[in-house]
Amino acid sequence: AKQRAGIERYWPVSRLAIEADEGVHFERAWLDPEAGKGFCLATGPSKEAGMRIHERAGHPTGEVYELPIEV
Amino acid sequence: AKQRAGIERYWPVSRLAIEADEGVHFERAWLDPEAGKGFCLATGPSKEAGMRIHERAGHPTGEVYELPIEV
Repeated sequence: AKQRAGIERYWPVSRLAIEADEGVHFERAWLDPEAGKGFCLATGPSKEAGMRIHERAGHPTGEVYELPIEV
Repeated sequence: AKQRAGIERYWPVSRLAIEADEGVHFERAWLDPEAGKGFCLATGPSKEAGMRIHERAGHPTGEVYELPIEV
């Protein structure tokens, strides 16, 4: 419950509205509490949309990678 | 076909033997050719096993994250 509350603070309720607006869908997300890092797998129209959704949610990231090749 | 050949050079045939030996299974893997980065999602007994499998395959990495929390 504590973890869940942390996530909800990180991604406020408005996330779903921003997702719809940007056309980005988060498929999966994971946390490494030891490293203090989060990893998301998302689909959307562009890398820029992926960066914008983070900015609009209040936590910009410089690490968004476009993954056109799955092996 | 060219991409596939590149992957096979990166992960030689022995990868499957090492995977079995370390108990690590790669679920998914993606490439960002622009950034020159690869990302793998793997399950296994430990973070150390994930690091060893990369070392044994000839391409050690310092970036292995344990992801106990999926959100």
